[in-house]
Amino acid sequence: MQLNLNADLGESFGAWKMGDDAAMLGIVGSASIACGFHAGDPLVMRRTVHAAKKAGVSIGAHPSYPDLQGFGRRPMQMAADELQATVLYQLSALAGIARVEGMTMTHVKPHGALSNMAAEDEALANRFARAVRTFDAELILLAPAGSKLVTAGEHEGLVVAGEVFADRAYNEQGHLVPRSQPGAVLTDTRECVRHVLRMLDAGGIVSMSGRRLAVPFHSVCVHGDNAHAVEVARAVRKALEDSGCELKPLAQLSTLGRR
Amino acid sequence: MQLNLNADLGESFGAWKMGDDAAMLGIVGSASIACGFHAGDPLVMRRTVHAAKKAGVSIGAHPSYPDLQGFGRRPMQMAADELQATVLYQLSALAGIARVEGMTMTHVKPHGALSNMAAEDEALANRFARAVRTFDAELILLAPAGSKLVTAGEHEGLVVAGEVFADRAYNEQGHLVPRSQPGAVLTDTRECVRHVLRMLDAGGIVSMSGRRLAVPFHSVCVHGDNAHAVEVARAVRKALEDSGCELKPLAQLSTLGRR
Amino acid sequence: MQLNLNADLGESFGAWKMGDDAAMLGIVGSASIACGFHAGDPLVMRRTVHAAKKAGVSIGAHPSYPDLQGFGRRPMQMAADELQATVLYQLSALAGIARVEGMTMTHVKPHGALSNMAAEDEALANRFARAVRTFDAELILLAPAGSKLVTAGEHEGLVVAGEVFADRAYNEQGHLVPRSQPGAVLTDTRECVRHVLRMLDAGGIVSMSGRRLAVPFHSVCVHGDNAHAVEVARAVRKALEDSGCELKPLAQLSTLGRR
Amino acid sequence: MQLNLNADLGESFGAWKMGDDAAMLGIVGSASIACGFHAGDPLVMRRTVHAAKKAGVSIGAHPSYPDLQGFGRRPMQMAADELQATVLYQLSALAGIARVEGMTMTHVKPHGALSNMAAEDEALANRFARAVRTFDAELILLAPAGSKLVTAGEHEGLVVAGEVFADRAYNEQGHLVPRSQPGAVLTDTRECVRHVLRMLDAGGIVSMSGRRLAVPFHSVCVHGDNAHAVEVARAVRKALEDSGCELKPLAQLSTLGRR
Repeated sequence: MQLNLNADLGESFGAWKMGDDAAMLGIVGSASIACGFHAGDPLVMRRTVHAAKKAGVSIGAHPSYPDLQGFGRRPMQMAADELQATVLYQLSALAGIARVEGMTMTHVKPHGALSNMAAEDEALANRFARAVRTFDAELILLAPAGSKLVTAGEHEGLVVAGEVFADRAYNEQGHLVPRSQPGAVLTDTRECVRHVLRMLDAGGIVSMSGRRLAVPFHSVCVHGDNAHAVEVARAVRKALEDSGCELKPLAQLSTLGRR
Repeated sequence: MQLNLNADLGESFGAWKMGDDAAMLGIVGSASIACGFHAGDPLVMRRTVHAAKKAGVSIGAHPSYPDLQGFGRRPMQMAADELQATVLYQLSALAGIARVEGMTMTHVKPHGALSNMAAEDEALANRFARAVRTFDAELILLAPAGSKLVTAGEHEGLVVAGEVFADRAYNEQGHLVPRSQPGAVLTDTRECVRHVLRMLDAGGIVSMSGRRLAVPFHSVCVHGDNAHAVEVARAVRKALEDSGCELKPLAQLSTLGRR
Repeated sequence: MQLNLNADLGESFGAWKMGDDAAMLGIVGSASIACGFHAGDPLVMRRTVHAAKKAGVSIGAHPSYPDLQGFGRRPMQMAADELQATVLYQLSALAGIARVEGMTMTHVKPHGALSNMAAEDEALANRFARAVRTFDAELILLAPAGSKLVTAGEHEGLVVAGEVFADRAYNEQGHLVPRSQPGAVLTDTRECVRHVLRMLDAGGIVSMSGRRLAVPFHSVCVHGDNAHAVEVARAVRKALEDSGCELKPLAQLSTLGRR
Repeated sequence: MQLNLNADLGESFGAWKMGDDAAMLGIVGSASIACGFHAGDPLVMRRTVHAAKKAGVSIGAHPSYPDLQGFGRRPMQMAADELQATVLYQLSALAGIARVEGMTMTHVKPHGALSNMAAEDEALANRFARAVRTFDAELILLAPAGSKLVTAGEHEGLVVAGEVFADRAYNEQGHLVPRSQPGAVLTDTRECVRHVLRMLDAGGIVSMSGRRLAVPFHSVCVHGDNAHAVEVARAVRKALEDSGCELKPLAQLSTLGRR
């Protein structure tokens, strides 16, 4: 069985460091790189792309609402044309920097509140998917498994990879439990591993209460900004490999549906 | 004789409008478009590119120091790698949005303090020119006529177009008189026209005192943010045409040196 | 009958100008001044306070969500403690600048999406009112007439002034029609005057359909950023005076309830 | 002998953490708190003030050029009126938040490039000192020992405390060696302690080469953002106490000259 392991990287900003990108690049197959709107700055982006290339990790853009102070986690409403231009700007910025570094951006994954809202709001999901397709119809859309963004991406004719989170709890509807609620973020390494293996076994999301949702997924995300992120990522990778999974960059998954 | 007439457009930001881009696009041959660091935002950029395409005006990126509040006019110092990543980010953003709109970005022109400083500082000029060449060696560098940025661009093997300003006074060294000094900005339309015609006649920059500097130029800039910008632009265009100049987009000038 | 006429001023930012503050200061009795989060910058704030003092216009802070690009009009969600700190920061900034200019800030009025959301969301209204009271219990809260923010302010023991808008249409519930809907903004001067006189006559809000809501108001807002803002403001002032209203700065209204 | 030990705190921003403020507040007598222009945000400011109060540490504002991405370390030029308004805004913001938390701001210390430039540029130093005095003539100006900012502050009639840095090397003129040069930042704890004790013994700055400059100082700064900041701060404090220094908050130093 093929799977992808991904992390959100390049989330430092100016003098502020976040996460251990170098270590994570030795573990994951794909990295979603912040584009300067919730994190990242031009130099952080360039260095992250450069390091991903050296590590053989495939890259994607990780666009966000414009919200550095809130790290893109504040729900926000933007007009449709403004949202699409905002996404295009970020995809363009990363794609250009990637090209200069001799890399090709192969996927897009929305960040934070934009991802959470697009997962449940069909109109927003459609706008996002259309912006991605308008930019490059060959891009893989990495979207929360079972979400409206998966449907929107497929509707736009994009290749969509469903994603589950190793360190985040799900509610009964298969949505992420909001960070403001207790138990939303799994911080214990063994708990993360168990969570991932349960989902692997179920072939879909498993909620906090143990409910299994039959939604296919192609990628497992390990966040890069937790205290034990590197340890979690290593443990999840080992557990997946021990379970017989073949871990690959997103663009090399043969399990992804083609249009 | 062939010449280009250019303006800096897309300098609105969010709810704030600047200049009359629609009118200017009916007058100039090329537009340098703000990339979000001193002005412009994703939607303003997309709309400006779209309007330029409809008007048959060629476009270029107008990158700046990151300084919205100061409109990119505050002299600033950035480390070499940070400056280059900052320029690459802005070129990438505009190039990507242009591509989505079916346009090709054909030139780059630095904005404000970045332009003024690169005109006189060889190391900075070299860094800027190298960033442009790294992004796309086919891009035309639109640089202040006679400046160190012209030399730097040529040294990097770029096609360089020298630019003079219709509404700005020059000092004895051929540099722009700083905006903080009296007489720096010409606000009277007839004065702008006389200034341009004197430079056309001289084949180079003419200083406030009347000194002629033998520096070739290929393009005349009319600023879009002055009160009488549109009137000045129309009058300058008419005066140039009446003098027998053939006005063309930058990329169509046969007078530009090729590598 | 006493009334206050107010406008939102100091909404320029850096090189971008908005509205004709000088003219508006000759018409209104009170000005709500942007604090740098949706508009305004330190120098704009200082100059606006200085001009208000010379014009004999009372001033208040006009805090917003942090959203320059969206002019504070994007609905946004912030954690309670973050929102309150954000409001305190803005009140502090304006109060300090006012003190340096020999002025006292006498009111607070939330801006844009923050105002619209606090008008309908009790928890948000309470948080905002508490932040104002924590900063200075003597401040007048200028809030949309009939809104939950009026109730929240009174609950916190603040003096609350209800406000109606000369140039905005109301729906059946007495809320502002969102700017995204047709007819939301009244642009014709005579229409604005009629709207205000109808509300004066009704002693409360009058909706688009003519429904009268019995909500007291103490102040009429004329926006400073419309094309005909100055003309509208003058006409509304004249109409109010012709109707026998005595126009006063907020802090001088004897009709405001005291705790 | 009385001395003050100070640190620059509240330099986190949104999701990004910097330094261990809690530990530093147990060591130093005074804290200079970022005001949101190079670091800090409203909530970080409020929490830092609150923690300083609990720790019995006196507080001051740490204003900067507006430059989050560059952490206020990029040299920049602003017009005189703009600079002063920018400083007033930041002082106001911290003073207001401090008041709400039941604290009084007792000093001001410029940050980064603003401090470095004001230390050597008399006109800038005068503008900064005048802005501080305009805001509150009772504030102590914490300025690099022997710098032009000390002179400017005294000229404005401010109480000035000269400051030396435990972890920064000085050149022959008594200026900080720029961070871009090797040896500028002392990272070894024992080296920092030796550096401080040498300056204590000399009663002034001691340069990299051992040159002694007879400039009085009243405060020693230990930076909060170095890897070993807490260890350095503890060691410096212990060494100063072992040398017989009485460590006090700035406002309690009886050695500070009064006007």
